[in-house]
Amino acid sequence: MQYDMLFQYLSEAEKRILSLLKSNRVRDYFNPEDISESVFSYINRPAKRLRPSVLLMAAGALGGPDREKLALPASVGIELFHTWTLVHDDLIDNDSLRRGGPTVHEAMSTVSRKRQNLPVDFANEYGRDIAVLTGDMQHGWAITFFVDCALESKIDSTLVLKLIKHLQSYVLGNLIFGEVLDVRYGMHDLSEIKDINEGKIIEMLWLKTGALYEFAGMAGALIGKNTCNFEDDEVQAITHFASKCGTAFQLQDDILGILGDEASLGKPIGSDIREGKKTVIVYEALRNANESQRETILATLGNRLATEDQVQTVTKLFSELNGIARTKEFAANYISEAIPYLDNISDSRYKRLLLLWAHYMLDREF
Amino acid sequence: MQYDMLFQYLSEAEKRILSLLKSNRVRDYFNPEDISESVFSYINRPAKRLRPSVLLMAAGALGGPDREKLALPASVGIELFHTWTLVHDDLIDNDSLRRGGPTVHEAMSTVSRKRQNLPVDFANEYGRDIAVLTGDMQHGWAITFFVDCALESKIDSTLVLKLIKHLQSYVLGNLIFGEVLDVRYGMHDLSEIKDINEGKIIEMLWLKTGALYEFAGMAGALIGKNTCNFEDDEVQAITHFASKCGTAFQLQDDILGILGDEASLGKPIGSDIREGKKTVIVYEALRNANESQRETILATLGNRLATEDQVQTVTKLFSELNGIARTKEFAANYISEAIPYLDNISDSRYKRLLLLWAHYMLDREF
Repeated sequence: MQYDMLFQYLSEAEKRILSLLKSNRVRDYFNPEDISESVFSYINRPAKRLRPSVLLMAAGALGGPDREKLALPASVGIELFHTWTLVHDDLIDNDSLRRGGPTVHEAMSTVSRKRQNLPVDFANEYGRDIAVLTGDMQHGWAITFFVDCALESKIDSTLVLKLIKHLQSYVLGNLIFGEVLDVRYGMHDLSEIKDINEGKIIEMLWLKTGALYEFAGMAGALIGKNTCNFEDDEVQAITHFASKCGTAFQLQDDILGILGDEASLGKPIGSDIREGKKTVIVYEALRNANESQRETILATLGNRLATEDQVQTVTKLFSELNGIARTKEFAANYISEAIPYLDNISDSRYKRLLLLWAHYMLDREF
Repeated sequence: MQYDMLFQYLSEAEKRILSLLKSNRVRDYFNPEDISESVFSYINRPAKRLRPSVLLMAAGALGGPDREKLALPASVGIELFHTWTLVHDDLIDNDSLRRGGPTVHEAMSTVSRKRQNLPVDFANEYGRDIAVLTGDMQHGWAITFFVDCALESKIDSTLVLKLIKHLQSYVLGNLIFGEVLDVRYGMHDLSEIKDINEGKIIEMLWLKTGALYEFAGMAGALIGKNTCNFEDDEVQAITHFASKCGTAFQLQDDILGILGDEASLGKPIGSDIREGKKTVIVYEALRNANESQRETILATLGNRLATEDQVQTVTKLFSELNGIARTKEFAANYISEAIPYLDNISDSRYKRLLLLWAHYMLDREF
């Protein structure tokens, strides 16, 4: 696949998104300095901005370039909404790296330790406090961008209100449900979790990731078509398309979490294994493992002190025991199911971009 | 003062608020059970519901009973907004009790320990994770109630959008600023904090508490008068009135934190002292203390293991060294400044309720 056209679009979209985001005066309310610094830390690091870009492409696909332009504040809102969930997720997962730099709680622990000569425990607690509040601030800021769709971009007020309500109830509820399942699954060996199966793992992935992609596609489609009708055929088509691609995105993410390299992932190799992340890869590998392989995997998975050798052995087992292939197969199936939804959308540059993006979900290497 | 009329209004308002809140279908999205239980835990405990009631009274004062009724979803939104800040604040302060029951992180630590036989550290971490996510869910839910002001109550969409934006940027920014200052002040002896003075402590109180009361008054006034003009004279009058009363509320809260009794406060006596909460009381007492009194206070303040005797000694010193009287004086001044703002609002049952409420800020004993 040739992705040049997609990459060019993503790169231009990122410029527009960051330019609007950084010109916004709400930043005047980010105080004190630890909060204003933390609110921007993930945003200022390299990222693909896939969620806001999908929103823009969907708006363009149903409304052309003029409606796509109007959708810009909503796309910034999605990026910020995604950002606050990352900050709280990193805190919950005790992750130390994100996008190649320290997570918010880590960075603020270091800042306070240096500034005030605090004992480590106090500094860590301060870092965690700032991470909670940073996510809260970003959450609020995300919503102000959606409001600006109506107050600044002159998108229909009723549509904007309905989008905010859907995001803050249905989508948020799904994200949080997924996050709690992820935490719970992380606390146990897979064999200890009642009735666990591939379907449940994929449901968790959809809740954590697919639901926000679905919303990005849906919001873009509604803004593009300038309708409040969530049941509109074309809106529904793009909604389902984005939802399935979002799940494929997360499946590919799980593969990259095992096979990707540190520089492009922005986090250390093996961290998914050391954290004991429960994925289709793990489920399938354990299903096919013999007694001794099973023991090897379980001794390493979730062991934060696992050696590089142990991590490499388990990485190899994940491939040999069909974990990687099975996950690739699921991801490819989701994309195959997603693509036909666009059949009845009329052809345009934006539709071609959406199709490229769907394929990219499987091919991306970071 | 006879508060019967106010208490009757508060009690009826609470019924209407809880009835709308509990009929809301967004609760269908609260999953899994730990989240749905936690989202409701503070709400279901006895509370005064002062913030939503001020919003309703302000709406009634400028728009009469019909507009007051329309403002009900906004009042629920304020109560929920306040609730999520409590959940995150309790987590940040490591508090174990709220409104006579365990805080969310404490309750969920206990639940998970019993259910899964987890080690204490793991259970505490799970409790903290659920508290972060519960606050996030309540934050989203609060906004959906504001949206319902337009979609259900048919309040002007532009007004509703402007209220949401103001809440999510200006008000939230102030709350978070105040929270960070509170955390920072809590980490040090007052004498170590650069340029600390009464003015700065009161600014922190305003940020943490006054700003949301101000918003409650302002939102009610705008909805009552059915205007988008934040600069309208009557709206401004009620905004300033509520802001000053909110600061007085917090000053009185600090007094009750020292002198109140456990049953009506819902938290143990002495907890403000053991937590080392920085208040005007502490500042004034230290200012007037001799060397030995100063040592006694500093040895107890922020000492979680302080004995009951130590707490009682410091409580007595706070009175003797003018800390309590000075704080009462500040609170009374704020109320004296607040009341004249209502001079130009025409007389009504709602105006009389607002005035009663202002006096109650000084007289309340829990």
